[in-house]
Amino acid sequence: MNAHPANLSPRAALATEREIVAAAYDPEIVREAGRRMIDALHSHFTDVQAGGGAVLNWHLPETNVQLATDQLRAADTSDDFQVDALTARFEELVRQILNRGQNLHHPHYMGHQVPASLPLAGLFDAVTALTNQVMAIYEMGPWATAVEHAMINEVGQAIGFAAGQFGGLVTSGGSLANLTALLTARNVSIGDSWKTGLATGESAPVLVAHAEVHYSVTRAAGILGLGTDQIVRVPLDSQRRMDVAQLDDILADLRRRQVKIVAVCAAACATPTGAFDPLRPIAEVCRRHQTWLHVDAAHGGAACLSEKHRHWVEGLELADSVVCDAHKMMFMPALCAFVFYRNYQNRYAAFQQVAPYLFDPSAPGMAQFDNGITNVECTKRAAAIGLWGVWSMFGRRLFAALVDLTFDLADRFYHLLSAQNDFEAFCRPSCNIVVFRYLPAEIKQRPEAEIDAFQLRLRRSVIKAGEFYLVQTTLDGRRYLRTTLINPLTDDEHLNGLLHCLREHGSRLLQTG
Amino acid sequence: MNAHPANLSPRAALATEREIVAAAYDPEIVREAGRRMIDALHSHFTDVQAGGGAVLNWHLPETNVQLATDQLRAADTSDDFQVDALTARFEELVRQILNRGQNLHHPHYMGHQVPASLPLAGLFDAVTALTNQVMAIYEMGPWATAVEHAMINEVGQAIGFAAGQFGGLVTSGGSLANLTALLTARNVSIGDSWKTGLATGESAPVLVAHAEVHYSVTRAAGILGLGTDQIVRVPLDSQRRMDVAQLDDILADLRRRQVKIVAVCAAACATPTGAFDPLRPIAEVCRRHQTWLHVDAAHGGAACLSEKHRHWVEGLELADSVVCDAHKMMFMPALCAFVFYRNYQNRYAAFQQVAPYLFDPSAPGMAQFDNGITNVECTKRAAAIGLWGVWSMFGRRLFAALVDLTFDLADRFYHLLSAQNDFEAFCRPSCNIVVFRYLPAEIKQRPEAEIDAFQLRLRRSVIKAGEFYLVQTTLDGRRYLRTTLINPLTDDEHLNGLLHCLREHGSRLLQTG
Repeated sequence: MNAHPANLSPRAALATEREIVAAAYDPEIVREAGRRMIDALHSHFTDVQAGGGAVLNWHLPETNVQLATDQLRAADTSDDFQVDALTARFEELVRQILNRGQNLHHPHYMGHQVPASLPLAGLFDAVTALTNQVMAIYEMGPWATAVEHAMINEVGQAIGFAAGQFGGLVTSGGSLANLTALLTARNVSIGDSWKTGLATGESAPVLVAHAEVHYSVTRAAGILGLGTDQIVRVPLDSQRRMDVAQLDDILADLRRRQVKIVAVCAAACATPTGAFDPLRPIAEVCRRHQTWLHVDAAHGGAACLSEKHRHWVEGLELADSVVCDAHKMMFMPALCAFVFYRNYQNRYAAFQQVAPYLFDPSAPGMAQFDNGITNVECTKRAAAIGLWGVWSMFGRRLFAALVDLTFDLADRFYHLLSAQNDFEAFCRPSCNIVVFRYLPAEIKQRPEAEIDAFQLRLRRSVIKAGEFYLVQTTLDGRRYLRTTLINPLTDDEHLNGLLHCLREHGSRLLQTG
Repeated sequence: MNAHPANLSPRAALATEREIVAAAYDPEIVREAGRRMIDALHSHFTDVQAGGGAVLNWHLPETNVQLATDQLRAADTSDDFQVDALTARFEELVRQILNRGQNLHHPHYMGHQVPASLPLAGLFDAVTALTNQVMAIYEMGPWATAVEHAMINEVGQAIGFAAGQFGGLVTSGGSLANLTALLTARNVSIGDSWKTGLATGESAPVLVAHAEVHYSVTRAAGILGLGTDQIVRVPLDSQRRMDVAQLDDILADLRRRQVKIVAVCAAACATPTGAFDPLRPIAEVCRRHQTWLHVDAAHGGAACLSEKHRHWVEGLELADSVVCDAHKMMFMPALCAFVFYRNYQNRYAAFQQVAPYLFDPSAPGMAQFDNGITNVECTKRAAAIGLWGVWSMFGRRLFAALVDLTFDLADRFYHLLSAQNDFEAFCRPSCNIVVFRYLPAEIKQRPEAEIDAFQLRLRRSVIKAGEFYLVQTTLDGRRYLRTTLINPLTDDEHLNGLLHCLREHGSRLLQTG
């Protein structure tokens, strides 16, 4: 921008393609915009963390889409590419993003398994986003790759895998992580399926899973050509954990009938209630039946970082494959999901072919640092940079603290709920997921369908008002309210506030019919 | 932090878990760290864009992994959680990221199809990363979702799809985009494959593809249970485009033999040389044989934004599914990949099941704004925010300019190469990918294997020195140098510099044997 004589009008100064592009890459504009962004984020976090404003800024989707489209059109009519005008425009857009989103850093946010992420992790992420540090092969992202290897080693060893003997990768989310691990299980369990496909005339293989397995596992069966009907669901015990004796019977029966088994999928923890499967006995059963054990520890895997809570994932290191999302209980912004293979040898089993323009035989030793070989993604973000940065600032104890604080808060919430006459907790929580219903006297005796509809209407009323954000789930066909206490700034006072808020909205709903 | 009395030592002040967590979320620390990050990025872009320093900061992977691991360990021995100490540590880590990466904004970067991304897009991305605006269901990311819908409409219409009649989604990369589109094609083309799987005893289906199709398409056949052996490759014409007459014959033969066809995969453009398939004639052949046409326009799709170059993707709007990566020729940081379905009705065909805790029957009208239904990902980043932000600042013309400048530069590079005695261009480029060899007199008459090895050694010598970054590819079994001119700050002077640099390294290599 500095190169343009001051006496030219913006239009004349930036008429050419080359000049528009120069403005878009101008480091001065980036710095000025960046400063405004940091200031906007500072006031945002200060307000929101103190409980200011709404949790969810609720607007109808059609309204938001129209506004977002209007912004795109506005730019095509502007001719001012000066620093001041561009950075003012930038700030206007940033404020719109902040004012119309979901405020996960509000202490009243207690919804999905998406955390009030560590803001510093987002800053590290911004460094690699602005400079576009990506992976696929080592030389494209040498530092991003190194950081990822360091984190895989660190987290894998925290789980209990033996140093130097396990393999791992980082991918864009838990669904892809489950897909990748189950693809590996499919390729290992069913001979040539990668090359020949599944339509070979041989009998159809099955996937054995926790009855309330996450939908990404069900989907994986659909994607991988196994078929969602080919999932054998293992019944749950009274604590909604996989029933080990029934698993044993199921595997024995399948082996007797010579049905091919891709894997057993256990949960640590299961999504609806946060129940942890008994991993050590399950691993023992799988070992006896020579079956691949996959554990979806997307949410609960981070418990391994806490002395107090690591007993929940005892035996996780016996699984053949494990998924653990740093963007859940390691409080990273989306997305940073780990896949681990207990046996290093299996890490190339998922994908098996050549791309000559990528992999260079003149440097064969590098291949083990080329993530493209182990990942479903080709170009891949530096997804672990935030975890590495924050870990390098605060150490492992920060992550232990985050698990401890949120798990313990959930236990206190359970006791709080149990002390009320008009609330009913579904079960004592194992982690930071708490499922419950609001059952005031007026609704308790009504038909089930009405009680269920009431929970849904109650939730919608509360979240639209922006007072709290929580979610809902269905268990045994009945509707429940569900909270994930995944903001470490939430405390007992806010939980008391939630009960108060539900009572207020509930009584209003009951009055208006 | 402010709450801690100044007379306590850092250790005493931050002994508890709660206090460590408070420091990690402290808005003052985020602001101070953010300012340091912006300043570091400013000086980085100023230096790098001016051609300062190395392109690739080359170090052995083992060295980098060790350094990254050392940083993790250093934190566990530190007890200082004051603002100054933490932000100084933050800055040290940021400088390490910047000093050991690949500098895509250096005008000598001309490697993979990963751009010198628009830095302002990274800033918008940072806003949603720090506040963790994600999607899956509308209410989790109302503004992120709206922005994505606006961009799908805008880019889809630019391609030529009819407003209101097409469907689309944004996903984490081109590989996933191809996987998603081909999963849709599989589910539409082969009755019940989602539910029943492919091992039903029926005959094996095939995927018909451009002979040099991207490896993510080959992989998709492996992942989806079709099998990589089930890919039928359509031979190429003299310009390395899919041969339409041979495609017609292949489809006629498959239909006659009643072999099920999942899809035809065309390329716009193909990865090795950047050749664009003739889309309109291909679409016509597919229509006659009632076959799904998928076009991988990951790289070349953005040509639709340029008046001058949109002729290359003429007919793209006739495809049943299209993939277009904004993190390639729309110069976004990774990852932002679009999938389009010409027919709106097909957008739910990829995934087909229920997650009761996600999708709420009390608000059925919202479902079309719940990305989780159309995407392989569950929790998903606000991947389109950078594209929306930059587009809203500069308008569509910026993206046209980026295509024009880089495509035109490649054409000039081709002419430059053709004017040299010691360089040989593989073919005239269609886009911004240029493939060539350095063939000085000393090497020209040597055996093929030696000439090939020389290209690889030459490239490695240049990239390790950090002088230029370019890649290599294999065509008809021979090795070539390959550049993607995907930094709009690269100009003719830099291309002359590349020839000079290759000559210098080449003569050194020839001298040392």
